[in-house]
Amino acid sequence: MRQAGRYLPEYRELRGDRDILETIRTPEQAVEVTLQPLRRMPVDAAILFSDIVVPLVAVGVPIRIEAGRGPVLDDPFRGDADLARLRPLEPEADEPYVLETVRLLAKELQVPLIGFAGAPFTLASYAIEGGHSNNFARTKALMYGTPAAWHRLCERLSGMSADYLAAQVEAGVDAVQVFDSWVGALNASDYREFILPHTRRIFERLSAFHVPVIHFGVGTGAILAELREAGGDVIGADWRTPLDEAWQRIGPDRAIQGNLDPTLLLGPLDRALAATDDVLARAGGRPGHIFNLGHGILPGTPVDHVQAIARYVHQKTRR
Amino acid sequence: MRQAGRYLPEYRELRGDRDILETIRTPEQAVEVTLQPLRRMPVDAAILFSDIVVPLVAVGVPIRIEAGRGPVLDDPFRGDADLARLRPLEPEADEPYVLETVRLLAKELQVPLIGFAGAPFTLASYAIEGGHSNNFARTKALMYGTPAAWHRLCERLSGMSADYLAAQVEAGVDAVQVFDSWVGALNASDYREFILPHTRRIFERLSAFHVPVIHFGVGTGAILAELREAGGDVIGADWRTPLDEAWQRIGPDRAIQGNLDPTLLLGPLDRALAATDDVLARAGGRPGHIFNLGHGILPGTPVDHVQAIARYVHQKTRR
Repeated sequence: MRQAGRYLPEYRELRGDRDILETIRTPEQAVEVTLQPLRRMPVDAAILFSDIVVPLVAVGVPIRIEAGRGPVLDDPFRGDADLARLRPLEPEADEPYVLETVRLLAKELQVPLIGFAGAPFTLASYAIEGGHSNNFARTKALMYGTPAAWHRLCERLSGMSADYLAAQVEAGVDAVQVFDSWVGALNASDYREFILPHTRRIFERLSAFHVPVIHFGVGTGAILAELREAGGDVIGADWRTPLDEAWQRIGPDRAIQGNLDPTLLLGPLDRALAATDDVLARAGGRPGHIFNLGHGILPGTPVDHVQAIARYVHQKTRR
Repeated sequence: MRQAGRYLPEYRELRGDRDILETIRTPEQAVEVTLQPLRRMPVDAAILFSDIVVPLVAVGVPIRIEAGRGPVLDDPFRGDADLARLRPLEPEADEPYVLETVRLLAKELQVPLIGFAGAPFTLASYAIEGGHSNNFARTKALMYGTPAAWHRLCERLSGMSADYLAAQVEAGVDAVQVFDSWVGALNASDYREFILPHTRRIFERLSAFHVPVIHFGVGTGAILAELREAGGDVIGADWRTPLDEAWQRIGPDRAIQGNLDPTLLLGPLDRALAATDDVLARAGGRPGHIFNLGHGILPGTPVDHVQAIARYVHQKTRR
């Protein structure tokens, strides 16, 4: 989860004052940032350095990423009239740099490479709110108020994400993650009506490629069964629900990713290791548990804590 | 839930450009704002116009409330050294205006008056983050990193809230609500260790007064049983967990408050009424259900939607 993230000094040095989107558009740099965490610690996979808004920017939606604020749109979507702003994505023409980054990494890496894209609710929320939101009031007002326009928007967004992920797989990623980070703002009934059919299309499209697909959101304790139903070989869970309970809701025939609270890494290591023990105990050594944080790594996280946890998990699970 | 809130034009007119804390400190105005929603719709109780940071401000912590941003502290708490900033609250001396507002309202009202205060995690998060937070990184870093300092801080905060609520009851409120709005950021294990003993002390202190006590948080689906254990005759639930499931976790011997998604009021009325039907059906007509929104009413909510829902709930539940 955001291994490349905001905690490695060598990343901050490489980025300097440059726009993060500029770094993503420069394959040599994106490759380097993707590799940085692997040099630091024994993680089992690399996660492509990119951002979920990249395809939106690539089709011409003006979004910038501000430090400490995230994606910002000065001219947010208001309804059907904005659909014209979302022409179909042509990954090779629109995002050659991402695919070039993937190709370069595929040649170099000794571990699997995970690509990713955003899912409809999360992408729509940025487009409609114009940035991060605490209550998703505008997003839900459009969703409840003009459901037909909502569904058309989500069709475009899910089509875009599916095309983007398919191109990543063709370029060489070994697994993909679908981020519906903010969908935990919905209850199960709204999820079923407004999101599930769209997210499901992404997973259906990907099924032809036979790569593992991870489906992730935060605060989704009440809708884990619905996320599973939408699709994904692996369902991500945050720290709010204990891993064994989360896995029970997801079902034993799916894998689970999670679920250490990333804020634990800001505290003393012994407490973080004890919480890691608890996650591993709840996973019970069953195959299909991918140890991970429950959400992105936080700025200011001590690198040696991340390293110690990666080592500790290996030591405890590799017999 | 924030009946006085941010949606009534007569409230905005009365407030004008004045600081919200200034309005709270002026009993005639606070009385008027408390009464405004009652003139608009048949709600069954009045909720005192105030804010959870009022006692902190009253003991000298410099907090301002910014429109669209909430409470802001320029000099946030960092640890034990800041404890000295939290002298014990003397409600009659420090907040005579709140108690005067309560006394005036108690004389005038035909319906019960609900007072309220903040609970330790939520108050501590404002003090430590300096405002609203998306991840509570600083709050949890202090909690995990210096547990003894955390517990001392929470002892002060829970003592302050208990004293404040006791004074409100003595001045004439008929019920009180304890807001731990952001405590859903914790899992059950952390809640038990860091929060439960402190919140419980508030409820224990209040038990002598024999007034109903409501215990509320957002995103608490995974810790409803722990909220119940900490205390409260009524446990609040947001819309993420269906009301019947939430009530099951809380237990049949407690009442429940909730749980319509407030964003529904921004959409078409027929959808909001259908969702209201669903909440009422899940409550099953059992005594002990207080119909309410799952969180505060949002700016821009049409007044006629709030009115229609208040009328509808009465029509459906008063036989």
